[in-house]
Amino acid sequence: MLSELELIERIRRMARFKDALSLGIGDDCAIYRPRAREELLFTTDQMIEGVHFLADHKPRDIGARALARSLSDIAAMGGTPRFCLVSLAVPPNHDRWIDAFYRGLLTVGNRYKTALAGGDLSHAEKIYCDVMVCGSIARGKALRRDGARAGDSIYVSGKLGKPWDRPIQPRLTLGRQLVGRATSCMDISDGLSLDLHRLCIASGVAAELDRIPIAPGSTLDRAFNGGEDYELLFTLPAKRRAPRGTIRIGKIVRGTPGEIRFEGRAIEPRGYDHFRK
Amino acid sequence: MLSELELIERIRRMARFKDALSLGIGDDCAIYRPRAREELLFTTDQMIEGVHFLADHKPRDIGARALARSLSDIAAMGGTPRFCLVSLAVPPNHDRWIDAFYRGLLTVGNRYKTALAGGDLSHAEKIYCDVMVCGSIARGKALRRDGARAGDSIYVSGKLGKPWDRPIQPRLTLGRQLVGRATSCMDISDGLSLDLHRLCIASGVAAELDRIPIAPGSTLDRAFNGGEDYELLFTLPAKRRAPRGTIRIGKIVRGTPGEIRFEGRAIEPRGYDHFRK
Repeated sequence: MLSELELIERIRRMARFKDALSLGIGDDCAIYRPRAREELLFTTDQMIEGVHFLADHKPRDIGARALARSLSDIAAMGGTPRFCLVSLAVPPNHDRWIDAFYRGLLTVGNRYKTALAGGDLSHAEKIYCDVMVCGSIARGKALRRDGARAGDSIYVSGKLGKPWDRPIQPRLTLGRQLVGRATSCMDISDGLSLDLHRLCIASGVAAELDRIPIAPGSTLDRAFNGGEDYELLFTLPAKRRAPRGTIRIGKIVRGTPGEIRFEGRAIEPRGYDHFRK
Repeated sequence: MLSELELIERIRRMARFKDALSLGIGDDCAIYRPRAREELLFTTDQMIEGVHFLADHKPRDIGARALARSLSDIAAMGGTPRFCLVSLAVPPNHDRWIDAFYRGLLTVGNRYKTALAGGDLSHAEKIYCDVMVCGSIARGKALRRDGARAGDSIYVSGKLGKPWDRPIQPRLTLGRQLVGRATSCMDISDGLSLDLHRLCIASGVAAELDRIPIAPGSTLDRAFNGGEDYELLFTLPAKRRAPRGTIRIGKIVRGTPGEIRFEGRAIEPRGYDHFRK
């Protein structure tokens, strides 16, 4: 079993992609030097054993997923990821687990040019991690949830209701394509019904859906109410052409903010809520 | 018991101090607009039930402590805190606990002008939190661990070996005073012997100590090896005057990097290591 200093040194050597940072792993803080005219995006997501994954899942997949979920939030704002901080707590005798976790996380980090800037390591009875990602976007250009207007078309970036444990492909390229075009955007992490409800409340509008694209082998219920799809949900003015591969599912209308109708019937927002009664 | 949306709305209303942010709680990401010529500092620290605190500790104190620990890292780099992200996981039926936790955290946030920019809420069997703080410093001015040179005097910002659960006063004012003066700086979070060892390794030097300031009621062993003091440890060129209230404890010397001597005897780095054999 390695000491904390030895573990941190191993992780530091694994983390090769450091372009974005003035100072990386090893001091009290990491240092980032902002570029001219950029705004910075910040998001963080927890992955907890028994809640978001099971103890027998592969550590490599857990590490990859932990980073990909936060990258999906950067995609939803139209941003480009710069670096991440990773907090991890594990039971004793998890040296090899920690190695595999970071290997999975850094594979995703290298693919999407996201540097590992630092973090925190601790013990705990169960595995816990929290990944913060910082992304970059031109000033004032971030895609938000509050800009959908009556008449806009509603789109998703792919079929919904996929298995919760498949690898996540954060839609970073699509997000950047939507900058300056979409009137609103967010990622679907808790299910279409709940996330579209949130988007409509933020924008003060309602939605009418006429088509739900269901992933092969899935059901309409899972497409509406399953979590963890990590597709983008966005709105475009009616006449604007949508990027290739995206699917129109309905339109924004005036009405009680947050109300969603599908084929004329009201839909309850029943996606994943950690604090549901 | 409240839903996740209701809980987030309550927290959003509690978080009044938002000057630093272009966009706060409620979207996929928070947005920060960097100021001219600033560099940004990033640090994150976990607080886990059964590891860093016990279930019967007051949630208000836990929230205050969770933020103060990360602010201490910003102080150690000479920075000014700007905002934080808070990840929190709690067992069911903890609505009042969550309220009190955020009340404690926001009291510290308001005192040190640190905005609550966002975070993540989840369920878990035990209480877990992770607080990321972003701070600001003029370009190239951050205090680091790797600048101590032979002949420098070593200082601490206060007496050591204090009870681990007393309130933390992050040394932000002192940290800023040291910018442009100290050759190295870090905070003592794992005990003087281990943290000075780390500073000496980063700087490639050794240390000779002649005085250890012991907190009332504490012992030399706790002052050396107890964690959680959150005082600053820093070095100044021999002729430079130290800020008021700081205590000289020895000097930097040439020698095996990381080696520490006290009154002529070698000291083992035995502070707190989460992964100690």
